[in-house]
Amino acid sequence: MKKNISIVGSGLVGSLLSIYLAKRGHNVNLFERRPDMRKTSISAGKSINLALSDRGFRGLIGAGLADDIREIAIPMYGRQIHHSDGSESYQPYGKEGQAIYSVSRGGINMKLMDLAESMENIKIHFNHRCTDVDLKNTTSSFVDESTGAAIVDKADMVFGADGAFSPVRMSMMTKTDSFNYSQTYLEHAYKELVIPPAADGSFQMNKNALHIWPRKSFMLIALPNLDGSFTCTLFLELKGEVSFEKLKDDESITAFFKQHFPDAVALMPSLLTDFNTNPTSLLVTVRCYPWTYQDKVALIGDAAHAIVPFFGQGMNCGFEDCVVLDEMIAQFGEDWQSVLNAYQIARKPNGDAVAQLALNNFIEMRDKTGDPKFLLRKKIEARIAAENPSFLSMYAQVTFSPHITYDSAYKAGQKHDAYLEQLADIPNVFDLWNTPQVQALIQSLLLV
Amino acid sequence: MKKNISIVGSGLVGSLLSIYLAKRGHNVNLFERRPDMRKTSISAGKSINLALSDRGFRGLIGAGLADDIREIAIPMYGRQIHHSDGSESYQPYGKEGQAIYSVSRGGINMKLMDLAESMENIKIHFNHRCTDVDLKNTTSSFVDESTGAAIVDKADMVFGADGAFSPVRMSMMTKTDSFNYSQTYLEHAYKELVIPPAADGSFQMNKNALHIWPRKSFMLIALPNLDGSFTCTLFLELKGEVSFEKLKDDESITAFFKQHFPDAVALMPSLLTDFNTNPTSLLVTVRCYPWTYQDKVALIGDAAHAIVPFFGQGMNCGFEDCVVLDEMIAQFGEDWQSVLNAYQIARKPNGDAVAQLALNNFIEMRDKTGDPKFLLRKKIEARIAAENPSFLSMYAQVTFSPHITYDSAYKAGQKHDAYLEQLADIPNVFDLWNTPQVQALIQSLLLV
Repeated sequence: MKKNISIVGSGLVGSLLSIYLAKRGHNVNLFERRPDMRKTSISAGKSINLALSDRGFRGLIGAGLADDIREIAIPMYGRQIHHSDGSESYQPYGKEGQAIYSVSRGGINMKLMDLAESMENIKIHFNHRCTDVDLKNTTSSFVDESTGAAIVDKADMVFGADGAFSPVRMSMMTKTDSFNYSQTYLEHAYKELVIPPAADGSFQMNKNALHIWPRKSFMLIALPNLDGSFTCTLFLELKGEVSFEKLKDDESITAFFKQHFPDAVALMPSLLTDFNTNPTSLLVTVRCYPWTYQDKVALIGDAAHAIVPFFGQGMNCGFEDCVVLDEMIAQFGEDWQSVLNAYQIARKPNGDAVAQLALNNFIEMRDKTGDPKFLLRKKIEARIAAENPSFLSMYAQVTFSPHITYDSAYKAGQKHDAYLEQLADIPNVFDLWNTPQVQALIQSLLLV
Repeated sequence: MKKNISIVGSGLVGSLLSIYLAKRGHNVNLFERRPDMRKTSISAGKSINLALSDRGFRGLIGAGLADDIREIAIPMYGRQIHHSDGSESYQPYGKEGQAIYSVSRGGINMKLMDLAESMENIKIHFNHRCTDVDLKNTTSSFVDESTGAAIVDKADMVFGADGAFSPVRMSMMTKTDSFNYSQTYLEHAYKELVIPPAADGSFQMNKNALHIWPRKSFMLIALPNLDGSFTCTLFLELKGEVSFEKLKDDESITAFFKQHFPDAVALMPSLLTDFNTNPTSLLVTVRCYPWTYQDKVALIGDAAHAIVPFFGQGMNCGFEDCVVLDEMIAQFGEDWQSVLNAYQIARKPNGDAVAQLALNNFIEMRDKTGDPKFLLRKKIEARIAAENPSFLSMYAQVTFSPHITYDSAYKAGQKHDAYLEQLADIPNVFDLWNTPQVQALIQSLLLV
């Protein structure tokens, strides 16, 4: 039976979801707060580029868009670490040929919207800011931001794909009992900066890597763009000894970058303009439950599980939500109560796991990637992987193994870490590699 | 300098706060959502009686009300445990003469409001439901529930003493950046029931105890009232094998009570009416931060830290908030920015600690008070306390020692537990009491 489904938010997840639902024959209305990004140049107020990996591609494959996106994606095969002493090192992300992909948020979003609008049973309504959802009656209220008019939409179901500050979720929070909710901010915020292409249009650093300048309590990262530039992001505490509040004028900004990122700042001619113009944005983790209301309303993507960006899994997790929801529709058909319930039961532990993985990876990126002991653990893990082709590190499980859930990957990673820690504590572990002691630990790790 | 201060909520904490602020010379307006409980018989929608202990009395002493309240309070010197096999046991809460006090929520609230209204610089506005606070301009919006009129109040400062679902807090959450927030519900809910007085007006059980029927995953408790009755509260999961959803009709309710609480049900003639009439209420823990906005707005009591009722510390903690705020006013005078900041820094760790203590005590009450190993630990602790008069158990620190913070008490309790566990693991520990092994553990515990 064809349903009239409203989706609040035509960002990455809302747009992809509309395609999945339309392919199942439903009639979909997408309501987007912003104007059409294909017609107006707007900043999404969010990161400019993102890391797409296998879980995300799986979502795109279902929509028939994977090849289109691969054409506008830049593979990053590893981390290029820029150490404090000016030296660099490189850590591959996976095996030969395995990569995560730098993509433009706007680029993917526009392709998704183009495809959605090409389908006769999807319509996108721009400039529609959601103010409220009547859960029982599945009527959503909007303000048309271009005219100020109030609009009420009546549907059979409502999906909230409306991001970290989801109005749909707020309606669930304020209108239902027993809604568990948390929003937790990091002490760190971020600001985007630019390394432009060289005069000849070429990349000024290795284009096939994610660049990291780990400085323990803060870090700079850079991802490549198709035009030869890199988008850099500074993650830094808001307050304290070394913090955004201390970077108040051009002198302090310049001094900070020259001290901590001399190689990067040499490539950033517009540093001061960018720093003073671009917003300082906060980093929040949102956890909530339930994600659904009867057979009528469901949250998806950041609205259900906003996470910090440090594992590059926000979009990937949201796309995976769509895939799993579609699987539940395949399984339960028109029994939407079962579809939505199975969806939230399947996804909630994975939302929690990826949130924790993302928080942990911040510490890994800004602190541990510059730490000799961490690098030794990574070397040990790499040798185990080389000698045991079926072994999958936690990173490989999360990034390259969509058939393994985030939750399983997280738990496996915790166990791996305990063994890797013990192995790294053995002096000259590589010399002792084939001793029974070392081999016993490796065998235990492989059995996780 | 005299300030015009608005307090949202004239419940227990809001009323007490108004008295503290009025004594400092400020002009206070209290806005209460409900009608005047002294004129209209209303249910607060909350527990009928509460346990008042030393922290709460400290708050009342500052308002000059401690003696008045002591007159309408019933001391409970210990826990009377009603075991599944029909036997009973008794655990004193503290030393000879130490007690927690069963008081009527409405009774205390009315005395506080009487005192507040007797002061010329306090005015209470009833039927005023807060809809919004403009934080920057300290203007609060209300709807007069009796007329439907919209009212805007302009003040120099606004305190949110408006409970677990605080509208003032919601304004802070939706209008400020970096507001950390969580609301977490238990799987358990509660329902209040009654054991009336005997025909001659006397109490049908020991009036000087808090009665507990611990049944592992659920429990019944009873606190005495001045009229000879007990208010009983059933804490039970909402869903599952044994749960509220299974108690659907008179047969299942009666069977459940006869099976699990035969001695209590014999004293509850109106069980079925009460069960079917009284609401099933949820149990939520709310944590948030910051609790203040500049020198303009602050949260206090449940609005800042709603906790579950199992340590009987909700009111006590809220009253202590008032005492600490008053101390900060004494210290920082008219520098309200410093007053509010020092208040939140001092109180936040204690709000977090009492929240955790309350959650832990639920498990202790419903499960462990019926567990022989727990009872052994309690006996060991009691003997240590008897032999070392300066020793304070975690319970004594929380309940009888207002000079020790909740946070310190919580941390001490964690350490005590580790030693008590070791002591309880020693077979015949009481026979071996004076051996070096046992004495060494006791000495370590005393040094916590």
